[in-house]
Amino acid sequence: MTTTRPWTLAERSARMNPSVIREILKLTESQSIISLAGGLPAADLFPVEAMREATARVLHDAPREAMQYAASEGYAPLREWIAAELASHGMAVDAAHVLVTTGSQQGLDLVGKVLADPGSTVAVESPTYLGALQAFTPYEPRFLSLECDDEGVLPEALAASKARFAYLLPNFQNPSGHLMSEGRRVAVIEAAQRAGVPLVEDNPYGDLWFDAPPPPPLAARWPEGVLYLGSFSKTLVPGLRLGFMAAPAPLYGKLLQAKQAADLHTPIFNQRVVYEVIKDGFLKEHVPAVRARYAQQRDAMKLALERHLPPGCHYVVPKGGMFFWLTLPAGIDAMALLPEAVRRGVAYVPGSAFFAEAPTAPTLPAVAAPQGGAAGFGAARHPAQANTLRLSFVTVDAARIERGVALIGALLRETLEAQKKA
Amino acid sequence: MTTTRPWTLAERSARMNPSVIREILKLTESQSIISLAGGLPAADLFPVEAMREATARVLHDAPREAMQYAASEGYAPLREWIAAELASHGMAVDAAHVLVTTGSQQGLDLVGKVLADPGSTVAVESPTYLGALQAFTPYEPRFLSLECDDEGVLPEALAASKARFAYLLPNFQNPSGHLMSEGRRVAVIEAAQRAGVPLVEDNPYGDLWFDAPPPPPLAARWPEGVLYLGSFSKTLVPGLRLGFMAAPAPLYGKLLQAKQAADLHTPIFNQRVVYEVIKDGFLKEHVPAVRARYAQQRDAMKLALERHLPPGCHYVVPKGGMFFWLTLPAGIDAMALLPEAVRRGVAYVPGSAFFAEAPTAPTLPAVAAPQGGAAGFGAARHPAQANTLRLSFVTVDAARIERGVALIGALLRETLEAQKKA
Repeated sequence: MTTTRPWTLAERSARMNPSVIREILKLTESQSIISLAGGLPAADLFPVEAMREATARVLHDAPREAMQYAASEGYAPLREWIAAELASHGMAVDAAHVLVTTGSQQGLDLVGKVLADPGSTVAVESPTYLGALQAFTPYEPRFLSLECDDEGVLPEALAASKARFAYLLPNFQNPSGHLMSEGRRVAVIEAAQRAGVPLVEDNPYGDLWFDAPPPPPLAARWPEGVLYLGSFSKTLVPGLRLGFMAAPAPLYGKLLQAKQAADLHTPIFNQRVVYEVIKDGFLKEHVPAVRARYAQQRDAMKLALERHLPPGCHYVVPKGGMFFWLTLPAGIDAMALLPEAVRRGVAYVPGSAFFAEAPTAPTLPAVAAPQGGAAGFGAARHPAQANTLRLSFVTVDAARIERGVALIGALLRETLEAQKKA
Repeated sequence: MTTTRPWTLAERSARMNPSVIREILKLTESQSIISLAGGLPAADLFPVEAMREATARVLHDAPREAMQYAASEGYAPLREWIAAELASHGMAVDAAHVLVTTGSQQGLDLVGKVLADPGSTVAVESPTYLGALQAFTPYEPRFLSLECDDEGVLPEALAASKARFAYLLPNFQNPSGHLMSEGRRVAVIEAAQRAGVPLVEDNPYGDLWFDAPPPPPLAARWPEGVLYLGSFSKTLVPGLRLGFMAAPAPLYGKLLQAKQAADLHTPIFNQRVVYEVIKDGFLKEHVPAVRARYAQQRDAMKLALERHLPPGCHYVVPKGGMFFWLTLPAGIDAMALLPEAVRRGVAYVPGSAFFAEAPTAPTLPAVAAPQGGAAGFGAARHPAQANTLRLSFVTVDAARIERGVALIGALLRETLEAQKKA
């Protein structure tokens, strides 16, 4: 318990530490370096004109309704739209069980609040989304990292977890970029049902496929056992903070009450504007344009990696999403190399940030040290994760991707040479 | 622990129950009755034209920045504006310690997350804001109701509380309408400092004064011991969900991390739009218009109450804000009378909803029973609170206020007559 008179902090706050990634991003923003570290979508693809028209329409047609307090559940027509959209992916969802959230990050917070007891086991992929670890951490669960391969989580690991719930990102996972195969989905659901482990399925990237749409969501295969989280951040814009969840009926009431307690409701203006943008099929034209751009830059990064990486690096070419995930030769510590990479003009995110047991801030100049010490969330890095890193290919153009990857490749080659000599 | 296979809910979720007020509001919205139950600001005063201009300007000047991910702390110029505004009220706040929140309801959630341990004592006024009870409840504190009089909380009650923190609304409190006097503020701060009880000061209504501005905030008198919450919901519009907190330095980092975990950041579009609306002094003209309207309707309700209430009712005429708080003759149960009041065409909020020990849903037809049973938050009403109710004067015009209060007055007279006969 931390006391700074007259204040005493809750014990859970000792586990809440700054995001490693946000600290890295702050550093890279202040310098003219090639940042492959970001997790931001490409802003030049934002549909500015459609947003202009939609805001004007909302402020003309229903200005007062759009600025007044509103229902905690969300804007009814938007919830209907979401239910229909999910139905097109094979999910039988009643709009009454759709909850609009202030970004899907809030969905994660509500999941933690309603489902995680202190000491209860929350199973996560290895690696997993850092934001989910941050959202769940204040509720003090015990994180259990499930072994994964290039097709996703191993069903036997899930079955053995005895977890309160397992948190999975089957589509173009952040950070690994992995796509859970059809066969793996079947096996994962079977294992989860057998073991009685319910699933929280997070799907921010599913629409950003390059070659073929991903298989149907896990929630389509086990409606009562899968809580589904979605987002408009990657298909439209993130700055309006609009996400949603589709919850099994027995959970909906409590999630709604948690939502009400958290911020009363998601800004109704934002909900109405996004609904105006998307209601007549806008995303059917817009999302393919995003896909095309990201696919092109994925190709550029693939080429650059083939050209510049030293032997011994492993990666799977992502079939969608925003990220390449690199496993470097054993003995290379991506966190330790980052300051030199930044000095040379390129940034990435060290992979250790994405493991439940891992996150510590790198010892970069001008990056604040994590507050609260080494308790829980900030514990020592697992050495086996040190040789991984994440590269984003969406906000940097092909030429800069080539240059950035070349810089990383040269640094890795030099490091390997120096290791050989030592 | 509730289990609905395969799901197991967190123990804290048993305490999270539907808002009594929201359930009442749902009922009243579906019928053509005079609702004095609402807590909504008057929508016809929303500055639609200013909002139109501001959104157009934001979407012209910085469309991509307004739609991209943004800093968890909030939009820097808005934070500067807030710091300057608070300075004009006597608070010496660095913009670096201002955190923009998704409505001040989120501020309450973050306060609970960072400060309240299970079983720790959180002291609240009696009555207090229901939304704060809802926000704090998931963190499982023990609520301690502090005795209050018409000038606010009693300093000796605060001093004796030994609370982790005390949550106070000094200006035109929701629901009581009370204004904490200058002398009481001095005494409260003295008592809090002496007892080492820090304060969370919530000030959504402070700008809505009718006769004279309220005394300086508690935070101006004890900067390191008071965490201050503010909101644009009552001075501008609530539907954009824009609030803020000014936190003592040792708390800021943890609150920021809790904010990041909760929803990454408050919609940057909303922050930029509101900043565009207010940056050149708009509120200096707009808020007086809100004040004038609300003052006029306060007067209408005062007149109606004088005319229609039976003897034995107590109320203080509010000097600002949105609410009258009525104490009825002993033996009258406002919750029990509500169904008949609604049948006759008028709605109010029974006062028992606003006591920490109290909230239960009324047994109205078509109102869902609270889920989760009587645990914690849903415990039995304190009988001493049964004879209180809250009336809002802001969304109903003078003629309907007169009619609504007349209906309530008649019902109370009949009830008292019946009691005498029995």
